[in-house]
This record gives sequence, C-alpha cells and structure tokens, in this order.
Amino acid sequence: MRWLAGLLVVFCLGLTTTALAKISDATETCISCHASVTPGIVADWKNSLHSRITPAEALKKDKLSRRISAEKVPAKLANVVVGCAECHTMNPKTHKDTFEHNGYQVHVVVTPKDCQTCHPVEVAQYDKNIMSHAYINLKKNPVYHNLMDTSLGPQVFKDGKLFYEKSDDLAEADACLHCHGTKVEVKGLKARETELGEMEFPVLSGWPNNGPGRLNPDGSMGSCSSCHPRHAFSIAVARKPYICAECHKGPDVPAYKVYMVSKHGNIFSSTKCKWNFDAVPWTVGKDFTAPTCATCHASLLVDQEGNVIAERTHQMNDRSAWRIFGLIYAHPHPKDPDTTKIKNKAGLPLPTELTGEPVSAFLIDEAEMEARTARMKKVCSACHATSWVEGFFTRFEKTIETTNKQTLAATQILLEAWNKGVAKGLPSSIFDEAIEKMWVEQWLFFANSTRFAAAMDGADYGAFANGRWYLNKNLQQMSDWLKFLLEAKGK
Amino acid sequence: MRWLAGLLVVFCLGLTTTALAKISDATETCISCHASVTPGIVADWKNSLHSRITPAEALKKDKLSRRISAEKVPAKLANVVVGCAECHTMNPKTHKDTFEHNGYQVHVVVTPKDCQTCHPVEVAQYDKNIMSHAYINLKKNPVYHNLMDTSLGPQVFKDGKLFYEKSDDLAEADACLHCHGTKVEVKGLKARETELGEMEFPVLSGWPNNGPGRLNPDGSMGSCSSCHPRHAFSIAVARKPYICAECHKGPDVPAYKVYMVSKHGNIFSSTKCKWNFDAVPWTVGKDFTAPTCATCHASLLVDQEGNVIAERTHQMNDRSAWRIFGLIYAHPHPKDPDTTKIKNKAGLPLPTELTGEPVSAFLIDEAEMEARTARMKKVCSACHATSWVEGFFTRFEKTIETTNKQTLAATQILLEAWNKGVAKGLPSSIFDEAIEKMWVEQWLFFANSTRFAAAMDGADYGAFANGRWYLNKNLQQMSDWLKFLLEAKGK
Amino acid sequence: MRWLAGLLVVFCLGLTTTALAKISDATETCISCHASVTPGIVADWKNSLHSRITPAEALKKDKLSRRISAEKVPAKLANVVVGCAECHTMNPKTHKDTFEHNGYQVHVVVTPKDCQTCHPVEVAQYDKNIMSHAYINLKKNPVYHNLMDTSLGPQVFKDGKLFYEKSDDLAEADACLHCHGTKVEVKGLKARETELGEMEFPVLSGWPNNGPGRLNPDGSMGSCSSCHPRHAFSIAVARKPYICAECHKGPDVPAYKVYMVSKHGNIFSSTKCKWNFDAVPWTVGKDFTAPTCATCHASLLVDQEGNVIAERTHQMNDRSAWRIFGLIYAHPHPKDPDTTKIKNKAGLPLPTELTGEPVSAFLIDEAEMEARTARMKKVCSACHATSWVEGFFTRFEKTIETTNKQTLAATQILLEAWNKGVAKGLPSSIFDEAIEKMWVEQWLFFANSTRFAAAMDGADYGAFANGRWYLNKNLQQMSDWLKFLLEAKGK
Repeated sequence: MRWLAGLLVVFCLGLTTTALAKISDATETCISCHASVTPGIVADWKNSLHSRITPAEALKKDKLSRRISAEKVPAKLANVVVGCAECHTMNPKTHKDTFEHNGYQVHVVVTPKDCQTCHPVEVAQYDKNIMSHAYINLKKNPVYHNLMDTSLGPQVFKDGKLFYEKSDDLAEADACLHCHGTKVEVKGLKARETELGEMEFPVLSGWPNNGPGRLNPDGSMGSCSSCHPRHAFSIAVARKPYICAECHKGPDVPAYKVYMVSKHGNIFSSTKCKWNFDAVPWTVGKDFTAPTCATCHASLLVDQEGNVIAERTHQMNDRSAWRIFGLIYAHPHPKDPDTTKIKNKAGLPLPTELTGEPVSAFLIDEAEMEARTARMKKVCSACHATSWVEGFFTRFEKTIETTNKQTLAATQILLEAWNKGVAKGLPSSIFDEAIEKMWVEQWLFFANSTRFAAAMDGADYGAFANGRWYLNKNLQQMSDWLKFLLEAKGK
Repeated sequence: MRWLAGLLVVFCLGLTTTALAKISDATETCISCHASVTPGIVADWKNSLHSRITPAEALKKDKLSRRISAEKVPAKLANVVVGCAECHTMNPKTHKDTFEHNGYQVHVVVTPKDCQTCHPVEVAQYDKNIMSHAYINLKKNPVYHNLMDTSLGPQVFKDGKLFYEKSDDLAEADACLHCHGTKVEVKGLKARETELGEMEFPVLSGWPNNGPGRLNPDGSMGSCSSCHPRHAFSIAVARKPYICAECHKGPDVPAYKVYMVSKHGNIFSSTKCKWNFDAVPWTVGKDFTAPTCATCHASLLVDQEGNVIAERTHQMNDRSAWRIFGLIYAHPHPKDPDTTKIKNKAGLPLPTELTGEPVSAFLIDEAEMEARTARMKKVCSACHATSWVEGFFTRFEKTIETTNKQTLAATQILLEAWNKGVAKGLPSSIFDEAIEKMWVEQWLFFANSTRFAAAMDGADYGAFANGRWYLNKNLQQMSDWLKFLLEAKGK
Repeated sequence: MRWLAGLLVVFCLGLTTTALAKISDATETCISCHASVTPGIVADWKNSLHSRITPAEALKKDKLSRRISAEKVPAKLANVVVGCAECHTMNPKTHKDTFEHNGYQVHVVVTPKDCQTCHPVEVAQYDKNIMSHAYINLKKNPVYHNLMDTSLGPQVFKDGKLFYEKSDDLAEADACLHCHGTKVEVKGLKARETELGEMEFPVLSGWPNNGPGRLNPDGSMGSCSSCHPRHAFSIAVARKPYICAECHKGPDVPAYKVYMVSKHGNIFSSTKCKWNFDAVPWTVGKDFTAPTCATCHASLLVDQEGNVIAERTHQMNDRSAWRIFGLIYAHPHPKDPDTTKIKNKAGLPLPTELTGEPVSAFLIDEAEMEARTARMKKVCSACHATSWVEGFFTRFEKTIETTNKQTLAATQILLEAWNKGVAKGLPSSIFDEAIEKMWVEQWLFFANSTRFAAAMDGADYGAFANGRWYLNKNLQQMSDWLKFLLEAKGK
C-alpha cells in the first residue's frame, strides 16, 4: 500500500504548494530562518488550515460552514494565508512585548485581541467565559489567594512547629497558574547569540504559559492556544477531550476522568477513529456518535438535514445552569465572569455563605438557569428520548442537593473545631491546618467528583473513586480527628 | 486522497441502500419521525450490522462465523433487517412498559428476553453470569445493602455527632446501581407536547440505566447494551477494554487501570489501530497481537488454521476460578450467580467467614476451579510457553493467599476495636465508623488492586498504586488509630 | 473499500512471501511446530521488521536510516532474516538456560548479549543506563531492600501488635521486580507432555519477567523486550508513551500520567494517528508534531533537511541532569549506574544525607549536568523559542529546590518523633511505622509528582493531583499525628 500512499502524498504536496503561493512576503521571511531554527512549529503550521486558505476564501463559505466570524477582514490580510507575520506583527503598538526583529515589529505573545481580527464572535463569547477571568478571579480574591498560598507552601519546621513561607511566583506559575493563566510582563530586553549573530529578545515574566485566563502584554485576557494549540490551531484538537484534560483531570475537577468511564467516553474511545472531527458544522450521528466535551459545551451542532441543534459558543457555561466545582458549595453560575465583585453576608468574596446559602444577587436567576438547561437538553435529545433526559437531570439536581448537605456537615465539624479552640478559623487562614485541609477535600475533591459523576453518568466517581465513599469516610475521620485534637489539647 | 475516499463513500452508500431495502414497514415508520426527533441514534443504527443484514442472511454463515445463535428465527423477522420496530415492539405483552405510540405497541426498555430471539445461547450464558444478578445480589443482601447505605450517606451533624440519613433512590441509581443496575418500573403515563402534538409516554423509575444487572419491566435481568451500546450494538466495541472500564476502573475494581499498564494493555494501545475488532471468529496473531478483556474472558478465539482455542462465553467467570474482588476475602467463585442464598457459619450472607475461611458448600469445587483455569491457560498458551504460564499462575495464587492474610490482620485490629468498645461491631453496622472504613479499604481497594495486578501483570498496582504499600500503611495507621481512639475514650 | 484493501493485502502478502524465502532452516523448523503451538507470537513476528529484512540488507542503509549499529554481522546470520533460531540458539554456551530441544540447543531467555550481535551501540548505552542496574540497585542496597520489605509485607497481628513477616520471592516478582527485573535462574529440568510427546524444559525461577534490570541466565543485565515487546520488537511501540507507562505511571513515578495531561501529551493523543512512528531517523514536524517520552529521552531526531537535532541514546539519563524520583531528595544523577557503591557521611547507601545534602563525590558534576541539559534544550528548541525554554528550566530548577525543602520539613518532624521515642529510627527500619510511611509518601509520591509536573508542564500533578496540596497537607497531618502519638504515649 506504500506506493499508493506515496503517490497520494506527492499529489497532496502538489495541492499544498498551490496554497503556499499565497504566503505573504513577511511570512516568507520568517519561514526562511525558522524552518531551520524552529522546524517543528513551521511544519505544524504548514499542516494547518491557516496555511492553506486565505481569509477572503474563508469568507466565501456558507454561514454554517464558515470558520471565521468577521464580516470582513482588513484588505492586507484578506488574500494571504494566515502565517507567522500575520499574527506576530499584528497590533504592534498595543503589544508591550513588541520588539524589533530583522526589520519587523514582532511580538511573542499572540492574544485573543489578535485572533479577533478574523474571529470576533468567538473572542467576545470567550470574554464572558469564567475561564478568561481565571487569573484575576484567583489572584484578586483574598480567600482564594489564601487557598493557593496554603496549598503551594512551602512550609518549614522550626522549634517543633510548622510555618508557611510565602509562595513564590515560579511555583504559582508551575501549579495553579498553569491553568488559571499567568500575568505575562515584559521585563526588558536581553541579547543572545543566535546562528545569525547577536540579537535582542524581550524578557518575559510568567512565561511560558498557555492558561485560558492569562493576562497578556497587550492587556487582553486569555489564550486561544489553550484549546487550539499552536501552531496548528485545529478545531479537531479542540473537539477531542484530551485538550480539556490538561486542566480538567485532577481530583479538584475530574471531568475528563469521569467522561472517560462514562458510556459517552467509552464509545468515543472505541469508535473515534471513524469520526470526522474537522467538519463544520458538526453533524450528529454522521460525524460522531457520542458527545465529547465540546459537543455538549461549545460546538455548533446540526442534524443530517442541516437543522441547528445548538449554536456554537465559546462561553463555556452557556449550556450549564450550575457551577459544580471549585467553590465550597455548588450554586447557580455567577452573572458576571469577574467573580471578584461577589460578597456574601459575612463579607467574604464567596458566592455562598460558609453554611451554603447562595448569594443570589450575584448569581443567575431561575429563568436564566432554565434557558441554559434547555439548550443542554436539546443536545441530549439528539440521541435520547425525553424520559431519559428528564430522569437524568432529576438525579443530577438531587446530587447537587446531597453533596451540598455533606459539605455542610463537614463545615459544622470544622466550626466546632474552631469554637473549641483546636483550630483557628477566620480571620486567620481557614485552609492551613490538617482538619481544615480535610474539610477542603470534602468539597474540592469529593463533592465535586460526585457531582461530575452525576453530570456525566460517570459511575464510580460518584461512588468509590473520590465520590460518596470519601464524602462519608472523610466525615467520620474528621469527627475522630476532632476528638484526637481535643484530647491532645486537654493535656 | 479525498477524491478516492469520496468515491468509495459513494460506492459504500450504494451498498447500504441495497441493504436498507429490506427495512420493515414498521421500522420505516419509526425512522420517518425519529430521523429528525433523535437523529443521533438513527444514524448510529444505520452504521450498524443490524441495519445491513437480515437474520435469514445471518443464519447462512458457517458456524464459526455466525453472530447469531438461534437455529431459526420467527418468519416475520427473518427477511427484514433488525430495526427499531423489530426490537421495540417485540413481546409487547410481557413488557409492562409497552404503550401505544402512533398505532404501535412500543416498549422503551429492550431486554435480554427480546435479544434472545436471535441470540439465545448468549442470553442463557449471561443468565449464569454474576453480573446479571448484580442488582439483587446487592439489594437483597443485608450486609451489602448496609455497605451501600453507609457508603452513600448523606450524614448530618447534630449536637456534636454524625448521623446517617437514609440513602435515597436517586443517589443509589447515580452511584452503585449505575453498574449493578436499577429496578426499572412503570409509574404511570405522562402526556408531553411533541412536534407531532400531545403524546403519552410511560414514566419509569430507575431510568435511565444500562447496568448489567438491571431488573427490567418484563421481569428479565440485565442489559445487553451495557457492553454492546445502543444503537450500534457492535462486537468491536465490546472487544475493546474501554467498555469494561465503565464499571471496572475505580479503586474497588481497578481492572481497566491495571490492564492499561500491563504489557498486554500497552501493546493494545500502541497497535490497536492495525487490529481487526470485527472479525468473527477472532484469530490470534492475525486479528490482534495482545489480549483485551474480551479475549481472555469472553471471545471465541481461533488460530490461523481455524482451530478453536476458546469457545465464546457470556458467563464472564467461565475461565476464572477465583473471585478476587468485591468481597472481604478472595475465594472460589460461587456456584450460583444468585449469591443471596449464601450463608456463612455466623449466619451472615457472605462467602467466607469474617476471618477468611471459605463457605465451601456454596462455592465451586477444586475440579471446577481447575477446569476454568485450564480454559484460561489455553488462551495464554496461544502466545506463551508453558513455563511462562505456570510461573504466572503460581504467583497469582500466592498473591491471593497473602492478600487474604493482610485482610485478616486488618480484621483482627477491627475486632480489637470492637472488643475494647471504641467501635461498634455486629449487630450494628460494620461499615459506618472511621476505623471500619479503613478496614473496608484494606480489602475493597488495596487487596483487590494487588490481586488484579497479579492477575494481569500490572506492576505498580501490586506495589505503590493502591497495592501492597497501602495494605501495609493502612495496617500501621489502623493500629495507631486504635491507640488514639483508646486514648480519647480513656478520658 | 474492502475490495481495495483486499487487493493490497494480497499484494503485500506477495512481498512478504519473497522476504520469507530467506528464513533459515532452523527457524523454519521452529515455525513448523510453533505456528500451531504458540500461533500468536509466530504471527506477531511475521508482521515484524525482523521477519522481512536480513542483516546484510539492513547494513546497506545510509547511516542515519540504519537500525542496526554493528559494522558487520557473522556470516551465517547476514543473509537470513532474524527468526526464532537466530536469537534463541545464539551463544548457547553462555546461556545456563540452554536445553536440548528437537536437536537444537535452545535457550528461553533472549538477552541484550544476544541482541548486541546486531545492536552493539544500543546495548553498550543501555549498560550505562540506571535502568539496566535496577535489580541490583534495589536488592543489594540494604536501605532500599528494607523499603521493599516493609512495603510488601505481609504483616500479621499477634497479641495486640503488628509484625512484618519476611516478604516472599513471588511477591517481590509480582510487585517491585516486575519493573526492577528479577534474577532468572535455572532450577533444573522438568518433563512435560506436549503434542509431540514428552519433552524436557528448564525450570526457571523469577520467570516470567521483562523488567529492564533483569539478571539473565547468561549473566547479562536487562531485557530489550521491556520496551520493544516480543515478538515484533518494534521501534514504533517504543516511541509511544504507553510502553513507558508500564513502569512509570504509579504515584511513585507518575511520568506517564503527567505527560498525558501536558500539552505535549494531549497533542499526541489527538493527532498521533497521523504521525509516523516507524521512520528512522525521526523528523520533527514531519513525522510528529509533539514529543513523546522517546523523543526527549532517547530518539535520533533530525529536521526536515536531515540535520541531527539529537543523537539516539539508550542511556535514558543522557539528556537529564537531575534525578527527580525514587530517592529521598532530588539530586544530580549518579556517575555510575551501579548505585550500590554510594555511601553518604552517615554511612548509608544513599546519594544524599538524610537532611538533603548531596553526596557529590558519587554524582555528576556541574559541567556534565550542563552538557546533559544542553542536549535536552536542543530538543525543546526544535519547537520553542529560547525565552520559552529558559523560562521553563528556571521553574523546573526552582521546583527541585522547594520540593527538597518540603521533604526536609517532613524529615525534621520524623526526627522529632524518633527523638521523643514515639517511633524507632536507625538502626531500626525507617520505613515500617505509620508516621514513617507518611514521611515516605512526602518524597516518594508528592515531591516526585510535583517535580514530574514541573519537568513536563503537567499542571495539576504539581497542584492537587498528588502535588503541592499533598506536600502541605501531609506535613500538617504528620505534625498532628506526632501530637497524637505523644499523647497516647503519655498515658
């Protein structure tokens, strides 16, 4: 079969060459060096759609099939493919990371503001996505900032006691901010020897990073390459669950793990090689036979007659009423993606009280919750009868209720520990002691896992795999631990 | 290569159309609406073998290649493909979920009793499978029912103490019964607005569910779509390990995880794209070069000359002598798949005493154990020399012995806690307190994991990944915890 | 498309037959029986490169494309394909497992000494690999041997106390030695009934095993089939991360898990089906667009013009300066793969003091560390700009520093427990009590995981998935546990 494959490769290369004829001079200049300096990314781009089609051609597609959402693009970009220079020299003045490079004003960090030249609708939706605010929502929320500090450490042991040291920027970037995004800042220029002699490059703090909430040197938030990794920027990659796993697999947010043991996930694993992940729009049953993360939360879906089942969205909670992870209690989604504005009655920047009551003024109302759920149910209904779908959501909402209840029980044990003086609560850190960390796991790991399992029919993640088993074991262990602390204090 | 693919698609569609000519009128009626109401499943079915071949054609295949086991099928089914109506209107009188739907007597839940029209041998074997009894074995066994209740909770904290509330049906369905199966019952009819006006549909409790031990509205047990998911009902999907992972991945039964790090699993992952998962019979070396779950436990295997290496079975323990998970001690498999009949000397419905001795009267004898092991060894021997196979089984049986020993040590610590009054044993729950839950993990997680690792050469799952490391750490922690409890009680 | 595939299969079989014409008489004899006795492995070999090319043909390839490193091969092997007999009858005198089999002097265990006939450079590199010494480094190091004993157990509970029993050989083989390798020894001959009448076969202890540090009956160390599993011995399988997962997935060495959630891993998962895993040399961007384990640590890499980016190595730490797992503190790699020679100031066979200071005399120096890092950075630079690469390594080295610091804090708590007499330190076991096992997890699980996450940009594995969260929680729990122990002792 090799000779046939060979023949076809030659044929395809021929096609590629035709497309490459539309490369801009600037991009040709980039490639002339970078094909040998960074050969991997040049090759990756050459295989991408960006290298094969111009915005003008892309605009000609019918509305459902279009992959760009601009009504028109600037003339100088319209008739060349989207190459190195098109993105890395765009908006040079707003980019603090712009530097002079072989006669061009180049910037390192391509941002949503650059991408929106062709993809404005997606960027506007993404701005309403909590994910795009992940950096500030973590760093500007003193409660959450303290959770980060006490999670990262390091601690030192002195005179028989443990002390937390200030966590360092590098650890933050390595851990929480990998997904939340870093703040990327220009810290001057640095000269380096290259194959072409000495050249100057910007020094960036918080770099490298691809977190979806990244604060960029042009003031924008987010990184499209979180999900459409450079330099292929593929829709197919974003539609597969692997990309989501980068940030949604740990015990704090086990979405990927739960998905992979769900019926949906195992059908995906078994049959994906026959699916079409590139088609736009994405046709249920024809292009795929079970949903991925993107199917339910993001993609434009149609049936085989081209009727729209769901509109594309880059606001990831557009079809989700409930925020089921990351916070102490599950609650309706916040109205505003900037959650630093939220204050509960106790004055804490949290969407619920410590005892679970939602801070409704900052959260979406019943009508909006229903609208979002309706959009999701329409996706389910492409393959499931109504009784199936309704039965599923009934269970899911009950699980939200009972996991919140199990979190409340843990909170009450913790309050008792604070009251009896064997742990220090507010205004001290509420996350730094052993029994407090057990409490954190109750909601951050076990309640979350149980809810994800309910949300995706993920079986054991609602039972023994960080699910209800641990919710109940943790309560019993917290209760015993409290007794042991009281005993040790009594002495 | 697109034009070639395109050409072939056209060609294949041509073939498909020919096959579709044999669709029954009733099924045509179903499709006429459901192609737009639930387009995903109609498309899925269209890609399936069921949509392309009639039972009459299927019966013509030679014995080894046949995918149906009936000697003949009812005349009215023989010459149409197996479509919506063929299954969903079968046996309408035995189905309590039958309802009038556009002039047809349709039922929602297709069951093994329906499938056995064409696949009677498989259904008969499946009835002997412990899996088909998973619902009643859990719900009708008071010890196991109590394990479920204390695992699911929820607990509430009142007056300084924790109390278990009664677990709710929805939580059970969401967790344990996802795999064990629910009891699906008709709770009346409900009218709903549809695109075709108001229609009535049955209201089902315990729905949705695909658990292999599901109790169906027609009185049958099980769900073929657990492993052959609807509406493709593919043999290929059932042969891949992903489907098994849905219920066999958690810490209580880590079969999939262990398999995936075994040499077998990693060869599967690396080379599966070149394997043929559709061929019947399944030829060792030609169709696949390492076993999957199905290879060892279920599939009909032949060598390249067509000699049978193993007969197909849907009784999943047909090649397994030992029951290595789920119960307190590993023991020979029960004789009867209905394990609620078992009673040990202490009167508990368990296959061993609390101290490990097997309750032999209810378990298979040496001869049957040897016969099952011999069938498994024949599969191993297709690729491994005798010394390899014997060495492997020697280790496996030793691991059963030592993991039981480590469970006994944990049980003895627990007995001491009961005796000294710091935990409450029988007749109280033996699963509800912290030290009891530590004991449960000894057998339900760590001993099981260690045995699965031995059974599949899964390396770290017998060492640090929930294996022997945890067996030993847990014993030391239980021993210290007991000291702390005694200390706290002393006050 | 079936008819086309069929046509091509016929064509390929034709080619295969041509190749098969060069099979030696001895191998033909093997196959004549084993095609039916062990059909799986014969078929696997028939699909391999070994069955299709002779060493003489392999030697004709240009240097970069050659898969064998011998300058010449013995005349009698040069013009036949590499079949059963070529390997299993090689060096019969040095093989203690050689036995008379149908007129041939056959041995069971093919070893690196056999493979080096054609692959001497790879075997010489592998001898410098710590992996090839994994058996002796574990079994001949009394500290590590004790860690193994206390990890494997089993323990028994007598008179209210736990006691460790001597761990058995079978448990060792089943757990630690699965990866470290067993010692395979001939324990006599045993007669067995076969289809060809009674035959004698050697009885081997420590068998089966494919561990990379296996001690073989010919005195050699290692097993090439660890990574190139029999009987395909494929380079493609070794280049995929699944094979590495067999030994590098557990909590003690979570490399595979971290990789799979990294951007590299998720691009691999999404796009691997379009990659070429067979090409030699391996071209960045053309054959693959993100690295696998092999890319960074082993493979010969070139750019599209054939310039070498990295030379092939089978010394797996050839591009790694730091040893980040398995020992108490991260430290520069040992100079010698035989680590049993190392002694710290306290006289322990460890590469650092218990308080973290490296035992520099036995470890590579700064210059060697820089040379190794430079080789790795050259691989990174195929796709990443210098600022990206430098930023990455800065974080990684900081993480080494802080994880060592967190281990030190845990060690200090442990020292306090020893000093205060609530746990027994040296010369007693330092791994056998609950608080000691908590200390072990600090470095063996949590510090390791955090470092792997930094090394591969693995996000949550540096945060909540066995990362910094657990480093800090474990410290707080150890500190409380110490209090509880003191309290219980006080009585």
